[in-house]
Amino acid sequence: MTLPSFTSGDLAARFGLELRGDAGLPIEGVATLARAEPGQLAFLANSRYRAQLADSRASLVVLRAEDATDAAGTVLVAKDPYTAFAKMAALFEHKPARAPGIHPSAVVDPRARIAPGAHVGPFVVVGARSTLGEGSVLGPGCIVGDDCVVGDGCELVARVTLVTRVRLGQRVLVHPGAVIGADGFGLAMDSGHWIKVPQLGGVVIGDDCEIGANTTIDRGALDDTVLEEDVRLDNQIQIGHNVRIGAHTAMAGCSAAAGSARIGRYCLIGGAAGVLGHLEICDRVVVTAMSLVTSSITEPGEYSSGTPLTDNRTWRKNAARFKQLDALARRVLAADKET
Amino acid sequence: MTLPSFTSGDLAARFGLELRGDAGLPIEGVATLARAEPGQLAFLANSRYRAQLADSRASLVVLRAEDATDAAGTVLVAKDPYTAFAKMAALFEHKPARAPGIHPSAVVDPRARIAPGAHVGPFVVVGARSTLGEGSVLGPGCIVGDDCVVGDGCELVARVTLVTRVRLGQRVLVHPGAVIGADGFGLAMDSGHWIKVPQLGGVVIGDDCEIGANTTIDRGALDDTVLEEDVRLDNQIQIGHNVRIGAHTAMAGCSAAAGSARIGRYCLIGGAAGVLGHLEICDRVVVTAMSLVTSSITEPGEYSSGTPLTDNRTWRKNAARFKQLDALARRVLAADKET
Amino acid sequence: MTLPSFTSGDLAARFGLELRGDAGLPIEGVATLARAEPGQLAFLANSRYRAQLADSRASLVVLRAEDATDAAGTVLVAKDPYTAFAKMAALFEHKPARAPGIHPSAVVDPRARIAPGAHVGPFVVVGARSTLGEGSVLGPGCIVGDDCVVGDGCELVARVTLVTRVRLGQRVLVHPGAVIGADGFGLAMDSGHWIKVPQLGGVVIGDDCEIGANTTIDRGALDDTVLEEDVRLDNQIQIGHNVRIGAHTAMAGCSAAAGSARIGRYCLIGGAAGVLGHLEICDRVVVTAMSLVTSSITEPGEYSSGTPLTDNRTWRKNAARFKQLDALARRVLAADKET
Repeated sequence: MTLPSFTSGDLAARFGLELRGDAGLPIEGVATLARAEPGQLAFLANSRYRAQLADSRASLVVLRAEDATDAAGTVLVAKDPYTAFAKMAALFEHKPARAPGIHPSAVVDPRARIAPGAHVGPFVVVGARSTLGEGSVLGPGCIVGDDCVVGDGCELVARVTLVTRVRLGQRVLVHPGAVIGADGFGLAMDSGHWIKVPQLGGVVIGDDCEIGANTTIDRGALDDTVLEEDVRLDNQIQIGHNVRIGAHTAMAGCSAAAGSARIGRYCLIGGAAGVLGHLEICDRVVVTAMSLVTSSITEPGEYSSGTPLTDNRTWRKNAARFKQLDALARRVLAADKET
Repeated sequence: MTLPSFTSGDLAARFGLELRGDAGLPIEGVATLARAEPGQLAFLANSRYRAQLADSRASLVVLRAEDATDAAGTVLVAKDPYTAFAKMAALFEHKPARAPGIHPSAVVDPRARIAPGAHVGPFVVVGARSTLGEGSVLGPGCIVGDDCVVGDGCELVARVTLVTRVRLGQRVLVHPGAVIGADGFGLAMDSGHWIKVPQLGGVVIGDDCEIGANTTIDRGALDDTVLEEDVRLDNQIQIGHNVRIGAHTAMAGCSAAAGSARIGRYCLIGGAAGVLGHLEICDRVVVTAMSLVTSSITEPGEYSSGTPLTDNRTWRKNAARFKQLDALARRVLAADKET
Repeated sequence: MTLPSFTSGDLAARFGLELRGDAGLPIEGVATLARAEPGQLAFLANSRYRAQLADSRASLVVLRAEDATDAAGTVLVAKDPYTAFAKMAALFEHKPARAPGIHPSAVVDPRARIAPGAHVGPFVVVGARSTLGEGSVLGPGCIVGDDCVVGDGCELVARVTLVTRVRLGQRVLVHPGAVIGADGFGLAMDSGHWIKVPQLGGVVIGDDCEIGANTTIDRGALDDTVLEEDVRLDNQIQIGHNVRIGAHTAMAGCSAAAGSARIGRYCLIGGAAGVLGHLEICDRVVVTAMSLVTSSITEPGEYSSGTPLTDNRTWRKNAARFKQLDALARRVLAADKET
């Protein structure tokens, strides 16, 4: 584990950024402006923190042109410093080597196909007719059921379960504890008892998607549950059967979409927000945290529900009045008529 | 893996349904009305979608008598087409064979008892004094702690954990990542530090229950946490210690019940809804999505809390007024008195 | 598995409690007042349940002095009966023996260091440069990635994942399915596609913390995510990257804190409550269940948001008026001005 090292000039050239200052500074890591040490790269994406520039010990800072004048040291100028920083930081990420090959403890069905360059870790199970693409990684404890496809360059970090009929595109990253392709929640009442509606569909996940830790994505009842390309799901998200999520949409932690909901492209769903089933959200919709979408949204924009936080005593008084809101409104409207 | 095949007449006879049309049509699968191909069975449960009948390529459609007149092809007439479809679809479900026996990698305590017809998959652990019933399946990576009972015909799909003192009835289905019987959240403050209240109870799960992926059900502090028969829990549900859930109740994804709550029979708890601890909900209560039950409910019916979704600008204005609601109500009431 | 046994006098002496009655009663277990049998210890912490004293068959009851007069049998008098009971109950908890040593199925990197008195269970994986302290337990199926530290006396019950750069203090208890140290959710938009912001920090968990089943704690982007000592997290909690939680704070099930939030010491966060990112909550704040904290809190106290539950018909009428709340308020204020 040797540290990578680049000069400030290397970074400027590699990412096409304007360098102002010393091109020969060695850079061996990244940090926040506040904590950076000499030899590290930091970033300033929000001008509000501009005052931190003066005190930072970072050797190199990536920032916008308009903030560059405040910097005493060497800087890289970028239109979008956060994106530029993200790309540069990737150079300094230490990833454990995952050598090609199948760990002797893994249980792989003879009908499965594992690409020669793929890595299958300890205690992994791969079922019948499933395939694992070139350069892909099944980390320790992953379980891939029957009839699954894991495309090239995917990584299932550890303890991921693909239950059955799950097809991942290329470069899909899945974090520990995620369960993809479990039975959708389909029930029918029959003489006072529930009977289970068989879940015969699958799950299709597009290229470059990311699925967070302990997130669950159920397989479809008849058709598939679908995530288009570049969908980003945080931790503990629940996606019901037959949901479809458009490309480039991101959902924050603990949000959920119920069965057969359709979410558009480039949407942002806030933390713990919910989307009811069988409705449609168009492209470029933002739903704020803990809001509940109860009907289709046809116009791009930002949407919210809920009430603001107050001290509990105030809240109790106002919440009690919420129960009378319709009656109050009637009085107001009646009084208006009288005058 | 050969496809099952039935004729339209076979299905009518097997499920006691009226056939209108050709009794000799071969049926090899199921699909939605919109996507069905010849050789497939589809269903029409909601008359709203009746227009799809004309275009459907399904060989056979199960529907209500009143919708049958619109169908050009062969139909099965059912009082409850969705339930009839669910039963027929089960014929076409391909389930992987789980041969009886214990995988050589499994670690089974010598004091555990495994029925001869049970299946214990790879990387399974079974603890002391635990028993596994006839025809039951412990899929790959399941962990059954000490003093657990898994009844006949149960299936723990994969990576399920029964921590300790968990007793499952018959035909219980548990999806991957579920954790049943972990410590309840019991704390007492002692001189500024938390001390842990030992969780000495267990969990009892009745016959025909289903537990979703990554759902957690804690064991009781002193008495048991109880799910009566035929309770259906979706994914990522949290059930606190000493909760009791009545028979035939269904809870949707991400809902939760806090410690010692009692939920009645035939209740429907919506997605992400919450039930506070130490309260009681009577039979046949419906709680809508993301509502919070903060006191006992003694009358059957449908209950809700929350505010409707609007565009964020409108929401901000209304939400700000929520903080003044009590003051506003006082003004209205005072004005009424004056007039 | 022999039952422990103490006399009533033993318990009084051991925990410094006043005994009123017979010092020679054998006590072999604990139970609730309602269910206790002779030979068992029960507690009365809430005077509301005082009527149960008369009917209880418990041999010994721990309670407050003011409730002691109602008891016919032998009692232990405590200032805080619940805390006293918690301590005594721990004597009767049966914990499975976890003998020191490494299970032959475990896969331990040669660069890892396992203390001689530690227990490593079946199907455990330990990565490079990770260390496991004296008396610690890695239950079945736990995965510890590279560069992690598990302090002395920790217990990872089963199927816990420490992804990378996770440092646990001493006596940390982690329940099944928890995922600590997965990538934080860091994204930057680049020409219409998301790019991943590398997550180079770690997670630091203080002494005596408890982490619930299927809870997720992401590692920091650059700095660490931090839980100070004695933090107690229930099940299915989501902690975003770079969050800091103060000592002795407890969070109930399904609550969440988004990236870079700071929560103070001795806070209580209710079930399914949410804390938005980049804000600060001072010490000794209580947030009630399902409330959303959208800005910093600088005063200790109890805080809430949301609306009360009502029957759905009433709710619909009031919720519809919420959409008109600003307009209504304007009318009321205008009417007030007129008069």
